[in-house]
Amino acid sequence: MNDSVEARELLYEGKAKKLFATSDPDLLLQYFKDDATAFNAKKRGTIAEKGVINNAVSEVFFRLLEREGVPTHFVRRLDDRRMLVKRLEIVPVEVVVRNVIAGSLAKRLGLDEGKPLPEPIVEFFYKSDPLDDPMINAWHVLVLGMATKPELDRMVALTLRTNAVLRPFLAARDIVLVDMKLEFGRHHGEILLGDEICPDTCRFWDSSSGEKMDKDRFRRDLGRVEEAYQEIARRVGA
Amino acid sequence: MNDSVEARELLYEGKAKKLFATSDPDLLLQYFKDDATAFNAKKRGTIAEKGVINNAVSEVFFRLLEREGVPTHFVRRLDDRRMLVKRLEIVPVEVVVRNVIAGSLAKRLGLDEGKPLPEPIVEFFYKSDPLDDPMINAWHVLVLGMATKPELDRMVALTLRTNAVLRPFLAARDIVLVDMKLEFGRHHGEILLGDEICPDTCRFWDSSSGEKMDKDRFRRDLGRVEEAYQEIARRVGA
Repeated sequence: MNDSVEARELLYEGKAKKLFATSDPDLLLQYFKDDATAFNAKKRGTIAEKGVINNAVSEVFFRLLEREGVPTHFVRRLDDRRMLVKRLEIVPVEVVVRNVIAGSLAKRLGLDEGKPLPEPIVEFFYKSDPLDDPMINAWHVLVLGMATKPELDRMVALTLRTNAVLRPFLAARDIVLVDMKLEFGRHHGEILLGDEICPDTCRFWDSSSGEKMDKDRFRRDLGRVEEAYQEIARRVGA
Repeated sequence: MNDSVEARELLYEGKAKKLFATSDPDLLLQYFKDDATAFNAKKRGTIAEKGVINNAVSEVFFRLLEREGVPTHFVRRLDDRRMLVKRLEIVPVEVVVRNVIAGSLAKRLGLDEGKPLPEPIVEFFYKSDPLDDPMINAWHVLVLGMATKPELDRMVALTLRTNAVLRPFLAARDIVLVDMKLEFGRHHGEILLGDEICPDTCRFWDSSSGEKMDKDRFRRDLGRVEEAYQEIARRVGA
């Protein structure tokens, strides 16, 4: 059945991906662009072949997670830049899980970047470009009706499970999973992990040198951005 | 014993209060000033007799809460501007409970001020002037060691109980309790409600007119600030 899926109209164009309808109402086509943005699109650029790498790296992670019991929207990778995914009704909450202090956590709380946390910290952000994705908490999610209690509990459990699966997988490849942003959606009543998992949405640090191997190289103008993305792909076997 | 308590050295001077040691190591003296600040002290001023009103209003609320099973640091009011309180080891987390959308919630999430919430929303903020009291969540509190899980659970339960006690008390006096900020501390291993509960730390709206009767009159230059504080004191019987 999937073999005969045809791309139809563009449903949505985001900062890094396009989403197309297909001939199957349950499936969408996710197209990975090379466009890179940061600071809520105040900074814009291109990272050569980023789309190809993020598609391939996401495939590796989604396949691994599915094997480890995390249901995802991944169906299969179609080609270099296109992934077939299950259609999700997106929950407007980004879930971030952190293992090491970095980025906005360091800045907001005046903490030193690089300090490992004794346990993961989970954070929620309301997906809204005009509002700059403000931080929210579980009460906002529930009382403002963004998700139900069972849905939110499931999202948190899947986030912690995803972190618990990817951390050792990456550590074995000399990569520290510093933090990552996950998105979830509803598909026939079930919560699935959606979006992508890649150097755009995670912080990856080299275990020995501590060197950044993710979008922070673009955000902070550190240079060798493409090389870092390629090295992540190489190490995870994408 | 309390009758013989003597004020000793100044321990701390905050924006609205001073805290003195006393001859009893378990007790402190809280002195209420007329100084008013807003936007993390970027705006400064004075509200005539504010200290007297906040001391008296806080006494009314603390006595009511103690009767209703919420343990507080309140011992007794000594005079116009001084309250005897139990010494607390302050938990560096401000707890906000909201019944109606207003203030930072409206701004952060792009919501209309004045909309009642179907259930209360609880928020946590890290007490830090240099960081502008950033919003945090339960994971930050626990993983960064600001409080233990039993302590945080107790703080949330006491916050919801405080809200459930004060809302109808105020409603019966034609006052809507829109939101309030609470602070807690440890006293001989027990979590007690601390600080003050007054028009500086709560949003109070007149039930009929919707008129603001709290520090927003100062923050937003609405005029008749002193009159609003006095009217709150009158209505609650302070």
